[in-house]
Amino acid sequence: MSTEINMRVLLKSRPNGFPTEDDFDVVESPIPRPQQGEILMKSLWLSLDPYMRGRMNDAKSYAPSVNVGEPMVGGAVARVVESRSPLFNVGDLVEGRFGWQSYAISNGIGVRKVDESLAPIQTAVGVLGMPGLTAYFGFLDVCDPKPGDTVVVSAASGAVGQIVGQIAKIMGCKVVGTAGSESKVKFIVDELGFDYAINYKTTDVAQSLDELCPEGIDVYFDNVGGFVTDAVMERINTGARIAICGQISQYNLETPDMAPRNLGLLTRSQAKMEGFLVFAYENRYDEGITRMATWIKEGKLKYKEDVVEGLKNAPKAFIGMLNGENFGKTLIKISE
Amino acid sequence: MSTEINMRVLLKSRPNGFPTEDDFDVVESPIPRPQQGEILMKSLWLSLDPYMRGRMNDAKSYAPSVNVGEPMVGGAVARVVESRSPLFNVGDLVEGRFGWQSYAISNGIGVRKVDESLAPIQTAVGVLGMPGLTAYFGFLDVCDPKPGDTVVVSAASGAVGQIVGQIAKIMGCKVVGTAGSESKVKFIVDELGFDYAINYKTTDVAQSLDELCPEGIDVYFDNVGGFVTDAVMERINTGARIAICGQISQYNLETPDMAPRNLGLLTRSQAKMEGFLVFAYENRYDEGITRMATWIKEGKLKYKEDVVEGLKNAPKAFIGMLNGENFGKTLIKISE
Repeated sequence: MSTEINMRVLLKSRPNGFPTEDDFDVVESPIPRPQQGEILMKSLWLSLDPYMRGRMNDAKSYAPSVNVGEPMVGGAVARVVESRSPLFNVGDLVEGRFGWQSYAISNGIGVRKVDESLAPIQTAVGVLGMPGLTAYFGFLDVCDPKPGDTVVVSAASGAVGQIVGQIAKIMGCKVVGTAGSESKVKFIVDELGFDYAINYKTTDVAQSLDELCPEGIDVYFDNVGGFVTDAVMERINTGARIAICGQISQYNLETPDMAPRNLGLLTRSQAKMEGFLVFAYENRYDEGITRMATWIKEGKLKYKEDVVEGLKNAPKAFIGMLNGENFGKTLIKISE
Repeated sequence: MSTEINMRVLLKSRPNGFPTEDDFDVVESPIPRPQQGEILMKSLWLSLDPYMRGRMNDAKSYAPSVNVGEPMVGGAVARVVESRSPLFNVGDLVEGRFGWQSYAISNGIGVRKVDESLAPIQTAVGVLGMPGLTAYFGFLDVCDPKPGDTVVVSAASGAVGQIVGQIAKIMGCKVVGTAGSESKVKFIVDELGFDYAINYKTTDVAQSLDELCPEGIDVYFDNVGGFVTDAVMERINTGARIAICGQISQYNLETPDMAPRNLGLLTRSQAKMEGFLVFAYENRYDEGITRMATWIKEGKLKYKEDVVEGLKNAPKAFIGMLNGENFGKTLIKISE
């Protein structure tokens, strides 16, 4: 271990619009040493998620910005390699917000032990971690689905959207997903069991929704915002529930995207729109993990991963994900 | 009675943008005669409300459009002058959707008997009728207020807004209203007891909100939409509740009003935005009326009316209301 180094990806500059690789610095540091009460972890898998784009800005948000010169934030699966804490043993598999680095130190706060028997370990930052729990609670709690509801999910092949759509099917809903390529559209119908899918890049979303959902839309789980959301909003039914999970279409704009005001649609439809963060459900994570792990074992819930090898490739993979070039949950494999 | 005529205000043409008096036809017809099971009513008070603008359009809404050549829809307080129904007696005071006309026929469906002992009879289409109940349920049920919450109400001197703000004070909230004149702003603070008021026509709403609500905004009851709503949304607290009651700033636009997309604010703040219609609470109207009548008797709830005499003046008064020229609940006094 003493011959290894700690690779870290730092925020070098705050992007205006789309990030570039120049906004990141890949540096090599000595491996840090744990103090009394701390653990040293070697990261195995890093999760790349759209929320990280917001952390690169110096703007008010629900969580602090990353400071320039500091490692990018991110959830990771790691192995405890040295423990000076009574709470963890060497060899424990853990998950937490360890950042874009190959080694991390923690006092254990916010570190969760991962049950390796449930599923492959990288699912602890995927379907059985933050993205999956976002889908689980955002759909089941915020959207309050009923059997027979027509559900639309945007970014439907992404880490969150793919799980939302499959849970909607488990709940007896009709599910339509939007995605940005023919292979994604084919995948979510053929492999994940969505009823329909719309390629928002090549088809008129409004017209497609009219054709696929003539009965209107009861639930919308939004990961993207923008014109896709406008088209859905025009077609919501009375009592519709709309979960605002993400707005990835808006994260990299240099000037604000202008749109016709449409809040009156909420009144006309007596509809509810709610923004949520998964952290609000922290005391129920075990429920979500247990239930989804069961669905995975029963073959009812699949997950697609887009794995990139090597932490040094994280900036490029992250930018690709913001561009929709990923296909499934984006993961960096840092180490065996 | 046989020498009287039935004055009716018909929709003559569908307006594009702001209605003009030419869009209405004031006509005189014979007084209709009730069939078996029906009642004939003489209207005393007609309520003018912003929702009526939507009924002039030929567009999908929660209620059918008014057909060209038919009387405008509207709630009224009326006296039964002839009854061929076992459910009503001559002399009964009733409230219902009798339209812009001095006499109306009904089979009794949707007709509510008014308790004249509660308050002046015109309150049956005001604070103790649709606008007051809209305020009551929209604020108490949709906004779920807690003592100490900071509440913002737009169109705060209007029929709904004035009641929302006073109920918010009864509930122990801090209340800021927006209105469009110095006299309205002064009134809602001095007479109705709001904590603060903002004249959105003469002051920078965003800056005023920063000064008056440095702690942020927990509840927003929106009657207007547009830039006032944008400014509020930028300042909502975690867990904020936003009731979309009306969007009067948008009802008379010839081209859509464009605005920066801001749904991401809902996620950041884990906030809920809900459109509602008062009809959803119909089985609880008695609760609302009883409670508000008590508050009126206790001096805790005031109401301001803007009374225009004569049904023939309804088109002008209606257009004035859409322009914000009314001061309080707009009523047409049709008859003694």
